[in-house]
Amino acid sequence: MTYAMIGTWRMAYEGLSKAMTTLEAGGKSTDAIEIAIKEVEDYPFFKSVGYGGLPNAQGLVEMDAAFMDGNTFAIGAVAGISDVKNPISVARQLSNDHFNSFLVGAGASQYAMFNGFEARNMLTERAHKLWAKRVQEINEKNLSPYDGHDTVGMVSLDQDAGMAAGTSTSGLFMKKPGRTGDSALSGSGFYVDSDIGGATATGLGEDLMKGCLSYEIVRLMGSGLSPQAACDQAVYPFVEKLKKRYGKVGEFSLIALNNQGEWGVATNVEFTFAAGNDEQTPQIYMANPGPDQTTIIEPISEAWLIAYEKRIKAPID
Amino acid sequence: MTYAMIGTWRMAYEGLSKAMTTLEAGGKSTDAIEIAIKEVEDYPFFKSVGYGGLPNAQGLVEMDAAFMDGNTFAIGAVAGISDVKNPISVARQLSNDHFNSFLVGAGASQYAMFNGFEARNMLTERAHKLWAKRVQEINEKNLSPYDGHDTVGMVSLDQDAGMAAGTSTSGLFMKKPGRTGDSALSGSGFYVDSDIGGATATGLGEDLMKGCLSYEIVRLMGSGLSPQAACDQAVYPFVEKLKKRYGKVGEFSLIALNNQGEWGVATNVEFTFAAGNDEQTPQIYMANPGPDQTTIIEPISEAWLIAYEKRIKAPID
Repeated sequence: MTYAMIGTWRMAYEGLSKAMTTLEAGGKSTDAIEIAIKEVEDYPFFKSVGYGGLPNAQGLVEMDAAFMDGNTFAIGAVAGISDVKNPISVARQLSNDHFNSFLVGAGASQYAMFNGFEARNMLTERAHKLWAKRVQEINEKNLSPYDGHDTVGMVSLDQDAGMAAGTSTSGLFMKKPGRTGDSALSGSGFYVDSDIGGATATGLGEDLMKGCLSYEIVRLMGSGLSPQAACDQAVYPFVEKLKKRYGKVGEFSLIALNNQGEWGVATNVEFTFAAGNDEQTPQIYMANPGPDQTTIIEPISEAWLIAYEKRIKAPID
Repeated sequence: MTYAMIGTWRMAYEGLSKAMTTLEAGGKSTDAIEIAIKEVEDYPFFKSVGYGGLPNAQGLVEMDAAFMDGNTFAIGAVAGISDVKNPISVARQLSNDHFNSFLVGAGASQYAMFNGFEARNMLTERAHKLWAKRVQEINEKNLSPYDGHDTVGMVSLDQDAGMAAGTSTSGLFMKKPGRTGDSALSGSGFYVDSDIGGATATGLGEDLMKGCLSYEIVRLMGSGLSPQAACDQAVYPFVEKLKKRYGKVGEFSLIALNNQGEWGVATNVEFTFAAGNDEQTPQIYMANPGPDQTTIIEPISEAWLIAYEKRIKAPID
């Protein structure tokens, strides 16, 4: 039977590859999503998710995460959670509850501690330095403080045709305390229905929630479109609509996977992602907006990967 | 030119009536939404919104609210905000920002204070008594603690064809600290596009966010359906799907208004709402699920209104 997985950004690759071995062995999509996203949360050099994530304006790391089971529509989510090693695991556990399954702020952090999740100061020395440097730049050059909002989002299909989706992010760098984006919001940050497929989003959450694009992509796939056609048709017209009606539009990128293991991507900015299935080992790809509301997708180059590795580990001066 | 407004529950009536005079005088939908919802938030005997709203398990009032401008798609939202007199006004002000427009928990409350919004202890003596009584009942009779989750939601159309939507709630009675529902979530709790129409939801937020029903209703109206047909087609099949896939479904009710001033409603439980337009003064209606995925709507009876008035002001023993 088919199994497959897709995840946002280069950072998804190692976690996705690890989770694919679970899917290959007959494991469930729900487990695969948690395994994969935990891996991303735990890696200190990814600066927009989990440990090592960039902090808010006060210098504190506040995180958002969500988990959705495509068989049952069960959703668990947290927004503005802090001092917890794996927000995705908290979100997954919350998805087991019919009530109180979306917790925010101090209530979310308290729930995690009360339920035995591992506490961790999520601010690395590196992230703290980046924050301090940014504060100085903003003060000196009067820059807009907001930058960087790369959510890891994953969609998985297992051999029993079960699907799941998850997201995790430390959100917008230098955000105001308590700010949340789309990542924990059903329909905007993620959506999955095992009878159809799933989608997740990354980018400026404030704009993504204006369009409910993850829901719309799944709906379009349900109407018979391929994941790629669904992504193109949901994303590019909405980008144009938002430019016209709101006057501007942030960066965003969406990924989709259907219940046949086929995937698609649409983006208004250079965007990397990872994907694999039973016929193809996980690979990293690069997507860019193409002509006439299409998406150009190509394998990532070795040079790009080397430059990326160098960039995320470069010393902070 | 046409103007119109619809709001969830009997409690919407006075605020909606007040806001309709603004619309009649040529005022904007955005103003009408804030005027109407503030009125509901301020009335102490509505126990699920604003002042007098029922508290969480710890006895504290935590509130959710959202505001959306259908002309621009601008959204402002707060979740788990406390000690603020009018959450809808905070949400509206946040909708002016391109970044940080959705704030949760302590960050949301701090934003409100920093920006000069009026502080208020939202816990009335009556709500405190109801909470204490409920705690005792739960302990003595081992009851499920969760009960009551009536969000006020409104959609407005002004004479310039501008539309807006808003929601406000104190959420699920006896909720865990930090719990939020659908009310602040775009697509689930609310959605509005002035070119089409708008919708808002009330009911069990944990289930509403599984369906993104407000977005779906607006989308269906955009495909040419009347508000009533859009509500019926979005809500009832999803109720069946959720029963089948999740095994159960909470209570929920949705309202919709299109850009012609026509409205519709769908619900899986007895549900009251208020609506009016340039041709008809605001009225309160009663909706119930009908046969074959339809909705039965009738004017509210005098007897129901008298019983309601008595119930919300009955002494707490």
